[in-house]
Parts: sequence; C-alpha cells; structure tokens
Amino acid sequence: MEDCIFCKIAVKETQAEIVYEDEQFIVFPDSNPKAPFHVLLIPKKHIPSLREVGEDDMELMGRLLLTAQKVAQENHLKGYKLAMHVGKEGGQEVDHLHLHLLAG
Amino acid sequence: MEDCIFCKIAVKETQAEIVYEDEQFIVFPDSNPKAPFHVLLIPKKHIPSLREVGEDDMELMGRLLLTAQKVAQENHLKGYKLAMHVGKEGGQEVDHLHLHLLAG
Repeated sequence: MEDCIFCKIAVKETQAEIVYEDEQFIVFPDSNPKAPFHVLLIPKKHIPSLREVGEDDMELMGRLLLTAQKVAQENHLKGYKLAMHVGKEGGQEVDHLHLHLLAG
Repeated sequence: MEDCIFCKIAVKETQAEIVYEDEQFIVFPDSNPKAPFHVLLIPKKHIPSLREVGEDDMELMGRLLLTAQKVAQENHLKGYKLAMHVGKEGGQEVDHLHLHLLAG
C-alpha cells in the first residue's frame, strides 16, 4: 500500500528502530509511547484492521499473539499488556492492523 | 481447573450472562465494566495466560481474535478496543487467559 506509513516501515522505505523482525512481522517502538516499553507489532501484509481479517488470516493472527509473547520474553518483560484498536471509533490511528505491547 | 472462576463459568457451574458461546470460547460481561460495552472472551480450555500458550494453541489464539471480530459484528459495534493483560505485573487479575473487548 503506497500511502501506508506502516507498509513503508515494513519495506524499510521509512526508517525505524527494529525491535524484532521475521518473514511475517516487524516490531518497532511506538512514536508516542504510553509506557517505558511500548512497541507496535504489525504484519508485513497490509490488512487495514481486524475487521478485514478473514479465515485465511487466522493463523497469522495466532502467530501475531505468539510473536508478542516472544518479543516480551526476549525483552525480559515480567508482565505486559496487549492492546488493539479497531476502527476510527475504536481509537485506531493508522489503517494497518497493529498490536500494542506495553510494559513497565 | 477446580478453583478457576472462569473455568466455572465455562462449565456453567457459575452463572453468567452469556453473550456468545461456541465449542472453544465463551463470552460474558466483565463484572467491573470500564465501558458501556465490556465483555471478556475466554477459551474454555484452561490456559493461565499468554505466557503459557504454545505452538499447539496458535490456531486457538487466531480464532480468539476472529471471535472478537464476530462478537463485535453481532453487537453492531462501530469501533472497539481489545486488551489482554499478561501476568500479575501486567495487570492480569484472573489466571485464565482472557481478552477484553470494549466499546462505546
């Protein structure tokens, strides 16, 4: 998606500090952190929000939660909070599905 | 799990207003709502938290997010927020994995 700022991060057109990356996901710090540790996990595939997720992406969604678990482990987080905003009315600010991971 | 209050809801030993139910999940109102619409989605299977989720449960986790999408649709929510607390230090209050769905 040409105009998606998160897609630009995924393809490295926009620079970000990469906290974690694999074939399916990229994780980088939230630009407006609400906690000492606050990163965003995004699938590299452009999906606007959870509303647009279909059966075909179910495994990707499961992997998203397991990736959050992995990032938390790698960063030695004792406890953490995950949050996902869905739709403008739900507080979603960028139209590319993303999961917040906060701790500290 | 004998002493788990969410397992008791899952097996109907403790009564709750059931918002949604299928073979794998049950959804009921949060007893201390933080929004006009605030329900908890839990897998019927006892998993203490996301920390204990393994590869075998990846599909269950994907289905959990799709179930949140379904419950939101069924309740005509325009936008919504999902949240999951992991571990006591992450604000988790009941040791049975649960996803908050809030709107309004």
